Amino acid sequence: MSMDVTFLGTGSAYPSPHRGASALVLRTDGECWLFDCGEGTQTQLMKSQLRAGRITKVFISHLHGDHLFGLPGLLCTVSLNTNPDPQQSLNQVDIYGPRGLRHFLRVTLGLTGSQLLFPYAVHELEPTTDQSPEEGQLSLEMTAERGPPHPQEQPGRTIALDASADCYLLFEDNKFVVKAFRLFHRIPSFGFCVQERDRPGRLKTELLKELGVKPGPLYGRLKSGEPVTLESGRVLQPSEVLEETIPGRKVCILGDCSSVLGEGPLRLCGGADILVHEATLGNEQRDKAVDHGHSTPDMAAAVARACRARRLVLHHFSQRYKPCSLQKDGDKDDVSELKRQAEDALQDTGVEVTLAEDFLTLPIALRR
Amino acid sequence: MSMDVTFLGTGSAYPSPHRGASALVLRTDGECWLFDCGEGTQTQLMKSQLRAGRITKVFISHLHGDHLFGLPGLLCTVSLNTNPDPQQSLNQVDIYGPRGLRHFLRVTLGLTGSQLLFPYAVHELEPTTDQSPEEGQLSLEMTAERGPPHPQEQPGRTIALDASADCYLLFEDNKFVVKAFRLFHRIPSFGFCVQERDRPGRLKTELLKELGVKPGPLYGRLKSGEPVTLESGRVLQPSEVLEETIPGRKVCILGDCSSVLGEGPLRLCGGADILVHEATLGNEQRDKAVDHGHSTPDMAAAVARACRARRLVLHHFSQRYKPCSLQKDGDKDDVSELKRQAEDALQDTGVEVTLAEDFLTLPIALRR
Repeated sequence: MSMDVTFLGTGSAYPSPHRGASALVLRTDGECWLFDCGEGTQTQLMKSQLRAGRITKVFISHLHGDHLFGLPGLLCTVSLNTNPDPQQSLNQVDIYGPRGLRHFLRVTLGLTGSQLLFPYAVHELEPTTDQSPEEGQLSLEMTAERGPPHPQEQPGRTIALDASADCYLLFEDNKFVVKAFRLFHRIPSFGFCVQERDRPGRLKTELLKELGVKPGPLYGRLKSGEPVTLESGRVLQPSEVLEETIPGRKVCILGDCSSVLGEGPLRLCGGADILVHEATLGNEQRDKAVDHGHSTPDMAAAVARACRARRLVLHHFSQRYKPCSLQKDGDKDDVSELKRQAEDALQDTGVEVTLAEDFLTLPIALRR
Repeated sequence: MSMDVTFLGTGSAYPSPHRGASALVLRTDGECWLFDCGEGTQTQLMKSQLRAGRITKVFISHLHGDHLFGLPGLLCTVSLNTNPDPQQSLNQVDIYGPRGLRHFLRVTLGLTGSQLLFPYAVHELEPTTDQSPEEGQLSLEMTAERGPPHPQEQPGRTIALDASADCYLLFEDNKFVVKAFRLFHRIPSFGFCVQERDRPGRLKTELLKELGVKPGPLYGRLKSGEPVTLESGRVLQPSEVLEETIPGRKVCILGDCSSVLGEGPLRLCGGADILVHEATLGNEQRDKAVDHGHSTPDMAAAVARACRARRLVLHHFSQRYKPCSLQKDGDKDDVSELKRQAEDALQDTGVEVTLAEDFLTLPIALRR
């Protein structure tokens, strides 16, 4: 199964003609999962190779406008470009994000008279009070949705912190377990960990032939991990006839933050194939970055080091940093300096550092 | 005083890489008045020659997302790029639009923790029940704002229809009178009439010299329309020493509609220098257009003819119509066909027809 990540917007604060506002897509098996949706994300999607109609899940890291203002319009446009087929009910879009997101969508879709051809549900994460300064916390009165739900809104869950694991279980199925964890920012912010499940290795078909086991139901039982008794009476353990387990890949995407919170994040992100972390400003502006709830390459590198990530991808750059392709000799605020700073901090760790750019796609290879 | 109109988005339904969502700017004396603000308008502004920081007034024709979803982000970005000067209080941004707009901004700015460096006020127009089918009417429960106002929100007016004049008086000052009028659409929609006030002509200084009147306070009194008694005892009427009055210009910008409503619109738009009217689909798709609350070139031309406009500008084209610059031989859905259709309908009227394109600027000349 192929997996890749495509960055649709790598700028902070607002969209500009050379850097979109925050958004990226994790694509697995043709499904698109959208992480954050700043204004203009739908147009960035049109410019990319991705298809907005394939979006089945949306994850919003925090409620700042540069991560959210594109969501109502994106949902409307996906719906407009959906072929209404009365024979077929369309799949629900599941949306995960901080408390208040349900109310935001109910009001923005409701007041604009926006009808969608598909149902949607908003599953809200309950922030804890230590995720932001007090002034960044929204009152329950502000976040509680009122009145009837939007016609296409399905009931969503309210997900509280699992205090013992220090994380939020968003969902799991036979392919993935997806959890969220807490970050510190000016308003409550979250990171997401997408863990692909390990899969059994291939059957050693040559060996099975030698043992006289013919292709058929026994193969399936062995592959699913069940011991099988042969006609000879011998009990065949799956481990004898399976190649090595294919370890699941792990993709971790952090929202805006000046630090991770608690034990959960580093544990969850341990050994991540890709860790996507913001680096809004360079090391030399650390105080300003922290003051605004943001990180520098040094700070991002420290997280990558602590969780032994394989690859650190930096994004969410101040709009002062032009994309490399537009950088000219002598320009100050060279974005590649941010890469060098992170690489310096990760010397001898083997962690690869990548600068995200709008429309960059990174394949996530199987570990073989 | 120079006046011009710049189109920032000429596409309908949603923004695309080749046509932005609805937005245009009327510029007068360095002030920018924004009409509609679809998603991506802030990025279109950055690509234009206009300065978002000059926006002092915003007019929202109706609450559909392709005319509105860019507004919260635009306000935030203008604020981020404002130089906070504690010595100087920043000017209020006045925002005019249908009932529900105040609640929309309160929720979108509030839930995203957006603080602005300038105050804003939303002045809401009360729609009438005949402006849309019943299903397009928002309940008072949905549109009423609740809870405390946003920290930067100033009290706004609620503007009811002036039934005798069949229009809404938005504001007037010594330069302009701005009114709104009713349109029929799927949801209540409005048009706006910006009427510049007539100005007195220049003083005939040669004649004044001959009469022995020297430059000074008398000039000002004559220019402001006051008769003046000369030393000789002669009473000088302003009309004797002023050139012809400079007639005020009139710019009329209609929101989405399948028809105008009542007597007000045609009366207000009479003799408009520029009439901006939507033409979402070609004449051959009139039924579909009307069904969706939209107009064809024929319908737009009929309005321009009825109000004896000098120039009809078509915009809000279905995204199927590429901009002329991207049109290739053999492509169907040629946008210039929409122009031809309007021109056919306006033969012998002398009304000039213009197709709007993103970033087109039209100067509005004085009538000399």
